[in-house]
Amino acid sequence: MNYINGGVCAPKGFTASGISCGIRKPGKKDLALIVSQKTASTAAVYTKNLVKGAPIIVTQQHLTNGYSRAIIANSGNANTCNDNGIEIAEGMCKLVEEYTGIPSEDVLVASTGVIGQKLSLEPIANGMPALLMGLGNNSDDAATAIMTTDTVKKELALEFTLDGKTVKMGAIAKGSGMIHPDMATMLVFVTTDADISPDMLIQALNLSVLDSFNMISVDRDTSTNDTMIVMANGMAGNKTISEEGPDFDSFCAALSDLSLTLSRAIAKDGEGATKLLECRVSGAKDKETARLVAKSVICSPLFKCAMFGADANWGRVLCAIGYSGAEVDITKIAVSFSSEAGEIKVCENGGGIDFSEEKAKQVLSCDEIIIDISLGDWQAFATAFGCDLTYDYVKINGDYRS
Amino acid sequence: MNYINGGVCAPKGFTASGISCGIRKPGKKDLALIVSQKTASTAAVYTKNLVKGAPIIVTQQHLTNGYSRAIIANSGNANTCNDNGIEIAEGMCKLVEEYTGIPSEDVLVASTGVIGQKLSLEPIANGMPALLMGLGNNSDDAATAIMTTDTVKKELALEFTLDGKTVKMGAIAKGSGMIHPDMATMLVFVTTDADISPDMLIQALNLSVLDSFNMISVDRDTSTNDTMIVMANGMAGNKTISEEGPDFDSFCAALSDLSLTLSRAIAKDGEGATKLLECRVSGAKDKETARLVAKSVICSPLFKCAMFGADANWGRVLCAIGYSGAEVDITKIAVSFSSEAGEIKVCENGGGIDFSEEKAKQVLSCDEIIIDISLGDWQAFATAFGCDLTYDYVKINGDYRS
Repeated sequence: MNYINGGVCAPKGFTASGISCGIRKPGKKDLALIVSQKTASTAAVYTKNLVKGAPIIVTQQHLTNGYSRAIIANSGNANTCNDNGIEIAEGMCKLVEEYTGIPSEDVLVASTGVIGQKLSLEPIANGMPALLMGLGNNSDDAATAIMTTDTVKKELALEFTLDGKTVKMGAIAKGSGMIHPDMATMLVFVTTDADISPDMLIQALNLSVLDSFNMISVDRDTSTNDTMIVMANGMAGNKTISEEGPDFDSFCAALSDLSLTLSRAIAKDGEGATKLLECRVSGAKDKETARLVAKSVICSPLFKCAMFGADANWGRVLCAIGYSGAEVDITKIAVSFSSEAGEIKVCENGGGIDFSEEKAKQVLSCDEIIIDISLGDWQAFATAFGCDLTYDYVKINGDYRS
Repeated sequence: MNYINGGVCAPKGFTASGISCGIRKPGKKDLALIVSQKTASTAAVYTKNLVKGAPIIVTQQHLTNGYSRAIIANSGNANTCNDNGIEIAEGMCKLVEEYTGIPSEDVLVASTGVIGQKLSLEPIANGMPALLMGLGNNSDDAATAIMTTDTVKKELALEFTLDGKTVKMGAIAKGSGMIHPDMATMLVFVTTDADISPDMLIQALNLSVLDSFNMISVDRDTSTNDTMIVMANGMAGNKTISEEGPDFDSFCAALSDLSLTLSRAIAKDGEGATKLLECRVSGAKDKETARLVAKSVICSPLFKCAMFGADANWGRVLCAIGYSGAEVDITKIAVSFSSEAGEIKVCENGGGIDFSEEKAKQVLSCDEIIIDISLGDWQAFATAFGCDLTYDYVKINGDYRS
């Protein structure tokens, strides 16, 4: 498996575009389009928030047959909690039909931004000619157009082999705040030229999010508009994957790898974050226990603040394990922190051990921190991704709407 | 029911003391003692965190018979996650026995502060003479000695009538960070001269925390050392409350009132907080639904940041309702904000309505904000208490340990 350039345009038959149409302030790209040359098997997962953005409702309707050809997405407005939301989301799909000839039922739609402000079709309609003109090898523009408070563009692609054929997979994603594991989080659009049936594609997607997008949290706020879509147009020419087996496994491995890399990128670029926190839990009696513990630690505001301050306050790790809801034997827990500056053990058998505060400070002053937690004698493990809690998170969210 | 002065020393037969013994930096009081002249019916509730401070284990053992005579408490060290924790907590009780003659089994103990650093008995032993000398009408000193990051001392007392007799009830409390509803939170010590059996006292306590201490959250971090203790020494001379009835109801009303007032005080003094948030949910189909919704809203970091910025970002309220886990009909939700500057409606039928941003800013710039959420046609209601999320929360917790 090799990482390559090109983002969502790396796989055969996909083009993309991203422009500024005026939903956001002038000059900030806010409208993206991804188009597949051929109809693509498509699978999606959505937020479990009861309050769902109108685009999600429309995308679900358009995906009932398991196929699609295009995704249109905007930033700057979530089109959520508005009485005309469905109409607007449908309108965005119809605009794509009008300009491309792709039936609006084959168009998926996503929006991200402020909740509860009406979205006007006008800037989008006005922007359509430029959006269409931009269609090409422009994954970059599309990735930029879906960014909100993201400071880093999230885009990647990889290639691998299936049935002797080279298969490519690319993705763009946005996500920085309102990130909490519960189904796929954020907006993630994945394209691939692999040939795979819609049934197997949704299976692969469900598997891939388990250890990636469902294991990240920036702030425990599960968004109303989270959507992850995978489009597979079959143009790589491999034998259609329509059942489990080695080809399906290879496909899943690629999708999981891509998802994990994006998850880390999203956690690291959490609103205001200065550090990626990677919590690896091992020795759990089952997977669910490991997941509960790992998520609880990376979600603890007190622990997140301690990491911001590079303070080896492992008591807060134990505290978060204790209220995680997982059944664990506290007296068997060991904790260590590591980073490129080295590793330092801080807790054994549920209690403190002597360690060098100076060394701990060095370890915790790097920008990627691993928290290793061993729960005892069992076998199951899980990893969760988060970030520190900083002044800038408060600043960004104290006046996001205005 | 009248509020009076005197804190935990207001009821007959209680004395208190608070000194600086050297666990914390010189001059900061860190050791408190409350003593009842007579053996008191005693009830307590504790954190549900699986990681429990050693003082909780010892207090539970000493309370198996439902009676006690004294509480010793320290700040600056939680005596949690230490292999000698039980020994130290027992040692604190034995020191009280040594200096007062009260059997150590009748002494309860509580600690608050950093987790995972060994607590030495030495400063406590050295401080005992001064602690005993200080015993008197000194609720104030005891209240000060249990404060950690609290900026405001929490102490109050009230009087009411039971069986024709004037009964008094007083309390001190600490709590500012690591506050999340799950059983009583923080340290709260209540004294009363009411005569009530241990059985009825624990019933009253369980009732009183439901709508008060279990409905506050500062940061979703459930502490390892939360303890609320009520001591009732019977010196008011009322007929012993040993069953349900009007006297029990009066007692519960007083305890609930006191608990609610302290809960508001603790939420308002949340670490770094500039505003008390009071979320009142009505029209829920049952109490549990109302509680889930109210708690979810006051716990949302994004909403808490918006309140810090006085931004009427009601979309974040809807988002938090949506992921609360409660079954609600989103299309029936109405939201308004109010404060001493007036009231402003921002959402009806689950969608936005026009409102004056200028007025909203005025309403949200006060230091006590009420968020009213109506869920529709049902009857149940609940209120939760929280605070805004500010730069200072990050500052305080970025280097608490050092």
